[in-house]
Formats: sequence, structure tokens, C-alpha cells
Amino acid sequence: MDFAKLNGLIPAVIQDSESHEVLMVGFMNQEALDRTVESGFATFFSRTRDKLWMKGETSGNRLKVTQVLTDCDDDTVLLKVTREGDGMVCHTGRRSCFQLPAPSFQLPEGSR
Amino acid sequence: MDFAKLNGLIPAVIQDSESHEVLMVGFMNQEALDRTVESGFATFFSRTRDKLWMKGETSGNRLKVTQVLTDCDDDTVLLKVTREGDGMVCHTGRRSCFQLPAPSFQLPEGSR
Repeated sequence: MDFAKLNGLIPAVIQDSESHEVLMVGFMNQEALDRTVESGFATFFSRTRDKLWMKGETSGNRLKVTQVLTDCDDDTVLLKVTREGDGMVCHTGRRSCFQLPAPSFQLPEGSR
Repeated sequence: MDFAKLNGLIPAVIQDSESHEVLMVGFMNQEALDRTVESGFATFFSRTRDKLWMKGETSGNRLKVTQVLTDCDDDTVLLKVTREGDGMVCHTGRRSCFQLPAPSFQLPEGSR
């Protein structure tokens, strides 16, 4: 993987293997990717805390990786996962970190 | 949106509105996000070319945005899109930029 484009990091998109929801996006350095593959559980590099963290290590809401895909220029990974614990991936207590914002972005007429 | 964490950029995950496939990840600065919302078509900031580009502007394979979601800490967007043109999003001629790599990552036993 090409970690050079983004200060040693690549984005990692987390998608539910069954529902196909996009759950979150985290960042990985080489070590986080290695640990993810070795452990089978999504492990990220926290930019704010400047350290590795296995998602759900304390809460039990781990993300069990079923497949690792890479993109055409090797600078992003897509992880298909199953949720452990209560399945609430977001720290706000929701299934996914992604929500419709309020106010929502106003797309042109006919965009839906 | 919080563009400060990543040198003025945020990752933008592109997901097919119907098939739910993750098609690609690009980066947006404020201007790219504004243009995406105004035009209704996914527009990115190219890190390698250092300029804005509307995906498919020349090929016709534009990505029509049906929904813009944001994540819990406002540093990533998820765009639900429908594909125009021949639907081949990746420059390699595939529907999605994401593929299983060869050799694939070897996850622990029982991960599938």
C-alpha cells in the first residue's frame, strides 16, 4: 500500500458485510493495517491521540474483518466487517457514524 | 465540515445508491464540496494534479449525487450516487475502484 501520499496514513472505509452500510472511516498506518490483518479486527491509527487503537477493544464493539479490498492506486482500503457487541459502531450510540446532517445539503432539483 | 485535520481536505466515500457498492474514495476541499452540492455531481480535489476535477466530466461517467451524509466528527462525507455513462467508475474499466488484491490479505482462521 502507498502510505506516502498522506503522511504515512491511508483511509480505511468500514462497510457492514451484511447490510452494506458504510459504518465509519478511520485511518491506518502500516502498523495498524498489519495488526488488523493479523488480529482479524479493525485497528486504526488515531490522529488526535497519536496511537493505535483497536476499535471496540474496551466496549466490546469490535469490528471483525471478513474481507480486505484495496483500490486501484493502492492508497485506500475497504474492510468488510461484521459487528460484535451491541453493534453500535459510533460513539454517539448509533449503528453508523454517518447521518444526514441538519440542515442537509441542498442538492439541485431532481437529484433524488 | 472540519477541513483542518488533513491539510484542507476531507475523504469522500462514494457509494452506489442502488447496489450499495463502495465505488471509490476521493478527497474534497471546501471548494470541491461546494461545487459537488451546487452541481449535484461529485467533484474532487486531485492531490496529484493539484486541482479540482468533476469525476466523468470528459468520459461522461459522472456520479450524480442523491444524498450527502456526514460523520459524527464532521471530517468525512459519504455520498450516495447514481452512475451516468457506462457506469465504469474506475479508470481501469471496472465498476468499482475496489478489488480483492492479489495476493489477498491472509486473515486469521474463521474470519469469513
